[in-house]
Amino acid sequence: MAVRVALDAMGTDHAPRPEIAGALQALAELESDIEIVLVGDEDVIRAALAEHESVPDRLTIRHAPDRVTAADPPAYVIRRKPESSIVVGLKMHEQGEADAFVSAGSTGAVMATSLFTLRPLPGVDRPPVGAILPTAGRHCLLLDAGANIDCKPHHLVQFAHLGSIYARDAMGRPEPRVALLSIGEEPEKGDELTIEVHELLAAEAGINFIGNIEGRDIVHGACDVVVCDGFVGNVLLKFYEAVAGYIVGLLKPKLEQLDHVVELDHVFRVLDYAEYGGAPLLGVGGVSIICHGESTPKAIRNGVAVAVRSVRSDLVKHSAEDVSRSEETA
Amino acid sequence: MAVRVALDAMGTDHAPRPEIAGALQALAELESDIEIVLVGDEDVIRAALAEHESVPDRLTIRHAPDRVTAADPPAYVIRRKPESSIVVGLKMHEQGEADAFVSAGSTGAVMATSLFTLRPLPGVDRPPVGAILPTAGRHCLLLDAGANIDCKPHHLVQFAHLGSIYARDAMGRPEPRVALLSIGEEPEKGDELTIEVHELLAAEAGINFIGNIEGRDIVHGACDVVVCDGFVGNVLLKFYEAVAGYIVGLLKPKLEQLDHVVELDHVFRVLDYAEYGGAPLLGVGGVSIICHGESTPKAIRNGVAVAVRSVRSDLVKHSAEDVSRSEETA
Repeated sequence: MAVRVALDAMGTDHAPRPEIAGALQALAELESDIEIVLVGDEDVIRAALAEHESVPDRLTIRHAPDRVTAADPPAYVIRRKPESSIVVGLKMHEQGEADAFVSAGSTGAVMATSLFTLRPLPGVDRPPVGAILPTAGRHCLLLDAGANIDCKPHHLVQFAHLGSIYARDAMGRPEPRVALLSIGEEPEKGDELTIEVHELLAAEAGINFIGNIEGRDIVHGACDVVVCDGFVGNVLLKFYEAVAGYIVGLLKPKLEQLDHVVELDHVFRVLDYAEYGGAPLLGVGGVSIICHGESTPKAIRNGVAVAVRSVRSDLVKHSAEDVSRSEETA
Repeated sequence: MAVRVALDAMGTDHAPRPEIAGALQALAELESDIEIVLVGDEDVIRAALAEHESVPDRLTIRHAPDRVTAADPPAYVIRRKPESSIVVGLKMHEQGEADAFVSAGSTGAVMATSLFTLRPLPGVDRPPVGAILPTAGRHCLLLDAGANIDCKPHHLVQFAHLGSIYARDAMGRPEPRVALLSIGEEPEKGDELTIEVHELLAAEAGINFIGNIEGRDIVHGACDVVVCDGFVGNVLLKFYEAVAGYIVGLLKPKLEQLDHVVELDHVFRVLDYAEYGGAPLLGVGGVSIICHGESTPKAIRNGVAVAVRSVRSDLVKHSAEDVSRSEETA
């Protein structure tokens, strides 16, 4: 089955070059039945495409002249910028012209427009955003990463379900270990929200709940999915992002004293969450992957790869089934 | 004025050696009028002291034979282990035989016993623990680091006051920049608690409030004091602690390929919050500094230094005055 990805070509800080390079990488390296539609200003895209020797047929363009800026309130983008790459790309997905949408544009705008066009699945109150964190083990899905603040306990239980399915379908973890972020392993450690959620998750069917974990356990790779309120998740995510840059700054003066050139790029890339294919918006009626505004071509390629895996694995169908099943047993 | 520090000699994982080495460092390097009393099992301390060639008169021993273990519930240590180094050391401070207490023992036990013996200052509802975070700029005081979960808005305002005074008195920041940890700079960004606290802090006298900051800003060194609920603070702190170890693990295989021995210890030490002199318990009627259980001699030395600075600068008096002043204007 061919998979068609609508890729926002205007999203990154250096658009459309990283998007185009990432799309070409994806087409060259991933399965041969993938098709990518670059969504954005046609003239701009064509000019940048001309820098590449050959462009495969599987890469096409959909014109979308409106530009979304930081000044656009996310909730109004759909009405005020109907011809923007975000709105046009998501509408293509909604209307079945594309199977998934990938964007490195304004997180708020992509989220708001995705919610409006793809709609929350029946029974999903607050669709969460998942962020992929590098760890000493395998990557870990953190959710909610900032879409939902002041969550109620049942929201976090729903995040656990949606995260579990995503980890299985899109991250290849057959039986994902789901943990609850807290300040101690004991069920009674934590704030009011966490203590209540622990009790609910311990009794919840269909989730491999391994209990509370602490910040350090995330880094050690203790779980596949970690669940928390969007406030804590967002604080943690932004903190993690910054640490990599800080370490580079600390190490540079030391390494410059060396005769040898040290190949540390790899190490720092491990710390760069942008390399891990973007943050999925979960619990909606489609596949919407939000990449970092500073995405490299490789990050875009990985965003496309994650979108394709989500489509092929029937992520949305599985999520909908799981939510309706949990509703029945609740 | 001589300053007498009661130092728990039984606290670290390798007690009493790091404590003794740290005490000797402090006496050799800090002001000559400092006196340290090693509190703990006299035989054990004497045996370890015998490994050192000479011991200055300013280092003495107070016998405290009871041992606090991880199995002791913190709240019961004062009754069940009255002859432990934690209880004996804090009682020395309470009764004026020592001007400050420093311990690398069980955080919970030190905190509970400090609250019981030194008592919260009049008007302080929930004494916070401050943690010192390394940043790309100068260190930053994070509070609350885990003592108070599910805080009310006025608690965080009090943390801002106590943190501000500590930064000035013990960290040498004449006009400390106080920030509120949130998920966006705008006052209306954050959870319910943060949004309300922002409003209160913006109107509060006697604090140099610079607004909301995000996780990344902490790392960049944007403030001297960052205020948050103890749940968020504790998650962040443990996360930060773990990251340094993770980075070392990532870098080691790369660095081992080099002919040169790279002196990166310094860099990793910058990331090790234990090097920064321990976490103060604030808003109580005394100086109680909690060091990490894995403290090195240098960390103990720094814990003593911070305790001495707190005493000399009249931290407790300034805190009490500030709290009663804020109460009057409230």
